[in-house]
Amino acid sequence: MSTNLIDAGAIAAHNDTLLSQVGSDYAHLGEQLGRRGIDIERVRARVAAFGVAIPSWGVGTGGTRFARFPGQGEPRHVFDKLQDCAVIQQLARATPTVSLHIPWDRCTDWSELRQTASSHGLAFDAINSNTFSDQKDQAHSYKFGSLSHTDAATRAQAVAHNIDCIEIGRALGSKALTVWVGDGSNFPGQQHFRRAFDRYLDSAQQIYAALPGDWRMMLEHKICEPAFYSTVIQDWGSSFLAAQTLGPKAQCLVDLGHHAPNVNIELIVARLIAAGKLAGFHFNDSKYGDDDLDAGSVSPYRLFLVFNELVAAAHEGVAFDPAYMLDQSHNVTDPIESLMTSAVQVQRSFAQALLVDRAALDAAQDANDAMTATHLLKAAFQTDVTPLLQRVRLEAGGAIDPVAAYRASGYRQRVAVQRPAVAGGSGGIV
Amino acid sequence: MSTNLIDAGAIAAHNDTLLSQVGSDYAHLGEQLGRRGIDIERVRARVAAFGVAIPSWGVGTGGTRFARFPGQGEPRHVFDKLQDCAVIQQLARATPTVSLHIPWDRCTDWSELRQTASSHGLAFDAINSNTFSDQKDQAHSYKFGSLSHTDAATRAQAVAHNIDCIEIGRALGSKALTVWVGDGSNFPGQQHFRRAFDRYLDSAQQIYAALPGDWRMMLEHKICEPAFYSTVIQDWGSSFLAAQTLGPKAQCLVDLGHHAPNVNIELIVARLIAAGKLAGFHFNDSKYGDDDLDAGSVSPYRLFLVFNELVAAAHEGVAFDPAYMLDQSHNVTDPIESLMTSAVQVQRSFAQALLVDRAALDAAQDANDAMTATHLLKAAFQTDVTPLLQRVRLEAGGAIDPVAAYRASGYRQRVAVQRPAVAGGSGGIV
Amino acid sequence: MSTNLIDAGAIAAHNDTLLSQVGSDYAHLGEQLGRRGIDIERVRARVAAFGVAIPSWGVGTGGTRFARFPGQGEPRHVFDKLQDCAVIQQLARATPTVSLHIPWDRCTDWSELRQTASSHGLAFDAINSNTFSDQKDQAHSYKFGSLSHTDAATRAQAVAHNIDCIEIGRALGSKALTVWVGDGSNFPGQQHFRRAFDRYLDSAQQIYAALPGDWRMMLEHKICEPAFYSTVIQDWGSSFLAAQTLGPKAQCLVDLGHHAPNVNIELIVARLIAAGKLAGFHFNDSKYGDDDLDAGSVSPYRLFLVFNELVAAAHEGVAFDPAYMLDQSHNVTDPIESLMTSAVQVQRSFAQALLVDRAALDAAQDANDAMTATHLLKAAFQTDVTPLLQRVRLEAGGAIDPVAAYRASGYRQRVAVQRPAVAGGSGGIV
Amino acid sequence: MSTNLIDAGAIAAHNDTLLSQVGSDYAHLGEQLGRRGIDIERVRARVAAFGVAIPSWGVGTGGTRFARFPGQGEPRHVFDKLQDCAVIQQLARATPTVSLHIPWDRCTDWSELRQTASSHGLAFDAINSNTFSDQKDQAHSYKFGSLSHTDAATRAQAVAHNIDCIEIGRALGSKALTVWVGDGSNFPGQQHFRRAFDRYLDSAQQIYAALPGDWRMMLEHKICEPAFYSTVIQDWGSSFLAAQTLGPKAQCLVDLGHHAPNVNIELIVARLIAAGKLAGFHFNDSKYGDDDLDAGSVSPYRLFLVFNELVAAAHEGVAFDPAYMLDQSHNVTDPIESLMTSAVQVQRSFAQALLVDRAALDAAQDANDAMTATHLLKAAFQTDVTPLLQRVRLEAGGAIDPVAAYRASGYRQRVAVQRPAVAGGSGGIV
Repeated sequence: MSTNLIDAGAIAAHNDTLLSQVGSDYAHLGEQLGRRGIDIERVRARVAAFGVAIPSWGVGTGGTRFARFPGQGEPRHVFDKLQDCAVIQQLARATPTVSLHIPWDRCTDWSELRQTASSHGLAFDAINSNTFSDQKDQAHSYKFGSLSHTDAATRAQAVAHNIDCIEIGRALGSKALTVWVGDGSNFPGQQHFRRAFDRYLDSAQQIYAALPGDWRMMLEHKICEPAFYSTVIQDWGSSFLAAQTLGPKAQCLVDLGHHAPNVNIELIVARLIAAGKLAGFHFNDSKYGDDDLDAGSVSPYRLFLVFNELVAAAHEGVAFDPAYMLDQSHNVTDPIESLMTSAVQVQRSFAQALLVDRAALDAAQDANDAMTATHLLKAAFQTDVTPLLQRVRLEAGGAIDPVAAYRASGYRQRVAVQRPAVAGGSGGIV
Repeated sequence: MSTNLIDAGAIAAHNDTLLSQVGSDYAHLGEQLGRRGIDIERVRARVAAFGVAIPSWGVGTGGTRFARFPGQGEPRHVFDKLQDCAVIQQLARATPTVSLHIPWDRCTDWSELRQTASSHGLAFDAINSNTFSDQKDQAHSYKFGSLSHTDAATRAQAVAHNIDCIEIGRALGSKALTVWVGDGSNFPGQQHFRRAFDRYLDSAQQIYAALPGDWRMMLEHKICEPAFYSTVIQDWGSSFLAAQTLGPKAQCLVDLGHHAPNVNIELIVARLIAAGKLAGFHFNDSKYGDDDLDAGSVSPYRLFLVFNELVAAAHEGVAFDPAYMLDQSHNVTDPIESLMTSAVQVQRSFAQALLVDRAALDAAQDANDAMTATHLLKAAFQTDVTPLLQRVRLEAGGAIDPVAAYRASGYRQRVAVQRPAVAGGSGGIV
Repeated sequence: MSTNLIDAGAIAAHNDTLLSQVGSDYAHLGEQLGRRGIDIERVRARVAAFGVAIPSWGVGTGGTRFARFPGQGEPRHVFDKLQDCAVIQQLARATPTVSLHIPWDRCTDWSELRQTASSHGLAFDAINSNTFSDQKDQAHSYKFGSLSHTDAATRAQAVAHNIDCIEIGRALGSKALTVWVGDGSNFPGQQHFRRAFDRYLDSAQQIYAALPGDWRMMLEHKICEPAFYSTVIQDWGSSFLAAQTLGPKAQCLVDLGHHAPNVNIELIVARLIAAGKLAGFHFNDSKYGDDDLDAGSVSPYRLFLVFNELVAAAHEGVAFDPAYMLDQSHNVTDPIESLMTSAVQVQRSFAQALLVDRAALDAAQDANDAMTATHLLKAAFQTDVTPLLQRVRLEAGGAIDPVAAYRASGYRQRVAVQRPAVAGGSGGIV
Repeated sequence: MSTNLIDAGAIAAHNDTLLSQVGSDYAHLGEQLGRRGIDIERVRARVAAFGVAIPSWGVGTGGTRFARFPGQGEPRHVFDKLQDCAVIQQLARATPTVSLHIPWDRCTDWSELRQTASSHGLAFDAINSNTFSDQKDQAHSYKFGSLSHTDAATRAQAVAHNIDCIEIGRALGSKALTVWVGDGSNFPGQQHFRRAFDRYLDSAQQIYAALPGDWRMMLEHKICEPAFYSTVIQDWGSSFLAAQTLGPKAQCLVDLGHHAPNVNIELIVARLIAAGKLAGFHFNDSKYGDDDLDAGSVSPYRLFLVFNELVAAAHEGVAFDPAYMLDQSHNVTDPIESLMTSAVQVQRSFAQALLVDRAALDAAQDANDAMTATHLLKAAFQTDVTPLLQRVRLEAGGAIDPVAAYRASGYRQRVAVQRPAVAGGSGGIV
């Protein structure tokens, strides 16, 4: 293990100071849940088995079109990023995988990268292609689109890049390719809507054809940005149409920030589950647009309601296997702190959703007893599962309070010395 | 013809005063279009062949949950409504059909109704079922849903009502059933999303099975209202899923006011055209929600952009046949004036969309010349096609200025005497 | 006390079954809070002193413009409404006052009404005028506005009604008049924005002049509905301008559902506090528009953030005295259950806001430590204060679980017999 | 004049080919307007006197947080920018002033800059400060705010920068300072709302104190971005509070893209006019957020409605003097083409608003004749004033079709040679 990571003894010392209160809180929570007929140990086991992927781009400081304000000790390359991810996983124990972004994470030796990850106890989740920005020495520009570009050579370049990503993913043990394109238009008339969609489908089919048999292709929709009048895969309807055209390995990825105001996202999740097309999630939160704020930081109940759909479907035996990823932009916080906190928040929502009394809810729904139904959800959401989450971390070797332990470790100050600031920095944002 | 309708001599006199200026304006517009390579006569012929259906409920004064302020001389029953529709058609000549709403328009002799319509020169468009409000002596309440209700007997009642509507429609010469349900929920947890959707599909399949071979079933989606947390057919994605499940005769109806803020509706139209599932439109406008304002009264360019998609698809030989209906609620205007004005506004958008230089637009789109592309749309939209629309009305026997002619006719004052105000009134709102 | 109210013995019996678990939970919560330096007894005392007013119109079933589905045993008049309010207060002990709506609550003997309320342990909060619907035999219609109407006689009538409301309020012991008008327009051009605002100000000044010295005039803004293109007091900016023009007794009332999508309401609350113009609240929740859903049922964290502003300002010694009212429309639940639940939810948010470590928050804010700051809020919000609220009710003679006790009481079934359904019903909605 | 600018002979030749059709169209428009009692020459004179400022940052290619795709021949410094502005003005004749942004436009010799501008026939409009991004060698970072920062030294630095901007503006002949800050927060709790506002006011007062007697300070509000949970001047209400606190020289600037979804911007304009606090505009358009699209490219009727308020107020003798500026980000078009087109679109809206029959509108509004009122606005908006705008340009020495003349000139190709692409480029975006 890298000498930069957190000292296990320090974590243990940190935990020691909190052990007795966690014990007392956990015992009381167990008693409360017991009264409701819930075995806390079974809940704990399921929460312990839950993980959410870290986006490699998330460990750099993000920015807006107005400015980027770099943080200290930002990762310089994918190995630095992996190390930061390892710290997150060491302390919070909820993020066993990393999702890479190509070309941002390109390196010369994928096998070395895989080995390094493995030494950190990390594996690789879905790999993300990037055809929304131009790279140096790129033959064709994506200014006017990529998979849906009017120019065949540009489309071919974008297809080839995606296939390249699959190859990289195979080398790393990934099992999925996430495809998000910024294609769209800024003016009424700029783009022929139907033709652009057809070109997208044609390109996507070529990528799909290159997909290994046990892989998934995850299509990500977005209402706007960077295109500001229309986008090619603007909502789950278009995403579903595309996934259906492509075939069974293509599914729809839901990024919580990619919808119009007021849209009921948990309902979309339910529709995609029913249609067998839910690929998974990019978790984040937002108040105004695709703000990529920390998951659950603004609307924690909404995050819970999404998990309520997932837990309900699993409870009812629906066959589906969503991928969980964070996708955030950290402009004013230390990315490591944000990612640990967000992972715990996602875990919290999952844990709370497990507490819903499904039989009682079914009965209330059948009886159109809206008051009881909503009380049942609130009863789960209002339960403070903190001691359960603390205990899960504790058992897995993590820290009871990950942010406190992280701050105490001095990790950021250490890497700030080792990683001199680079002009431009590494803070790619998605 | 009913003696209540507008005196043809008065219309002619009205037209006489404006004839020379229409002639001059039309000639100059013809010259302008000629310079752009457009034959005004061909445009005029297409506009003359265009019609949009009047919703029978639109001729009564609408209201909000806070109050309804009745107007004068409101129609008391479907025969009064038909008469108002006939006035609209007589003056504006853009609304040859009427769309009924059952049970609001129930009568004892459908054959007489059809004959009366025919004597007014009117035919019947899609018939609308109503399972979002309870009728007197109804066995089961729709308080908690209709086609998706948890109770089988309630669902059966709603199915039977829809089949009844089909029967009425057959008697009247309709060729389509529009199904909009208010089903949904007001609280998180109240409704099991997937089961409610399944129940909806099951009910809809029974209706679909009763559909005559040459009919269409038009599914209308809506993001919210009267359900305020979730709806069963909340967006075009769910509508498409349902239509696809039902079969080729089922298609998706787009009501312009039924979407989340900011949503690009013309893009949805393009997607539905491409998927072969565009049923047609409920035209209206809105600033905040489903406000059912007069078509094009707030966002005329948006209405134009919708027609731009329709004209483009037709131009490219896509096979589709959208139904055009107005669906408005007139709270502060005389409904007859609003419906004439809205019909003309819809006609205007169609005419303007016909002026787009398709070949030049294709070239600009292929070249990613966004500026030229958007200029081409604006050039069409900025063209004042008023003289063309006036001429179309003139040729068809209508009034050059329908609202002025209507006001001069004293029709409203006349029917105000004949139609005493009834408590509750006829102002059903959708 | 009315014989219809809940039997005290039944409440006691209900409580007995839950006493021991409340005791255990409360003790553990006290221990947890103690660790955080919080004295649970002090929090409890403050929560016990907190109350939120019930809107008289809330005990009837609401509806939408599409339909109203009446409930059982709906109140027939203000005395029935008072009785339902008394039940709410008896069980939940968080709603010591009632807010009336004139003319819906008009009666022939205000003194008898006041005495009845008093016998139920209830007092009267702000009185609400209604100039957004027409009453029978009203001389001038509000179809085109009230306080801002173009016609002086209509404005005078609306002013007189408000002054009448003040008189009624004086008779009942109210200390505030809430003025919400539906005035606005549905079409661009319909209304002269500046003149309408001036007329509103002129009318409001006449009402203000009639205000007793110790009264407040609460101005309620709303972005839309029933007017759908513009409203006269459309946002807090216009409300503030009006309140400032009127004088110190005029302040701005915040209804949580009356804003544009995405708007940060807690920030508006902070601005109004700072400007000395916060009148108080109409609590409810919403997902799409002014849906008047149960407070905190969709966005509980937002409700907490509003209370966080209030508690912070009080903590810092800012002089202000907000009025708390519920304003909901209950379409699918028993209104008594919804109002009890909502009152408890509001109380919960207040209790949670009291748990925020203000000194630590100040320090984090000063240090721009966003992560710690937001953790501090979440720590308070995630605390399950249920046992504290249960204990508050218990001490005050209420029920530990108000909805369960209410259902067990059979109150609704009893009044269903006594109150035959009336056509039209009493379900006025605001 | 610089040899790079457009050849006057070429413009004349371009115009010659279109002269006769402009003559014919103008004559017919004059006839049409004459019928409506409007003297086309008077309208033309007012339009000819109208100008809108170009933002210096607008001539560079914009971008998003995802990528920036540079254009050809981008300006390298403020002198290049001025030259591009001169081309815009030479061809479109609607943009006699330029609005600078400091430090982006910093140069070593302001007197030379002013002289150069003058030689191009250009003057300087409001000067814009920038405290939303860090500059090299800046002592204090604006990562956590500027005028409202918790740290006094950072605030002092931001104040000093604004005062420096005033000095630069004086040297250039500006008469206004536009202050927009990105200050706000990304997390609930991060910022103390009231204290941050107080600090903002305190800083703004220091800047205000340094304002020359004949200057204005224009405060720009924005709902979000770059701060994503709250902003310090989030809406016109906060902007008004600040302007009122500062004094008569402080006013509120309205950027059309800075509002919540659905907000009625023309109504805000009316409120600010009435309150004597309308500073002016940043014109652009948007579909989803602050997309900075070309003015009127998505919602041309909305732009017209804004001008309708301005023309009405002027017509009624209200004393106010709004500043007109474009503020756009050109990501997919040649900025020169976009700015010419947008200036003409703004001019078009002004011209159309001049055509509204004010007396008839007053009468319709007084009579609550919504239909006539809205018809009057539509009659003005539907009038194709293109020939009038062409004639205005012609008389002023510009091009009848500015984009066509520009493309024919080869200007972009010429400067592409002279201005080698620089890494990072000059495409600052606001």
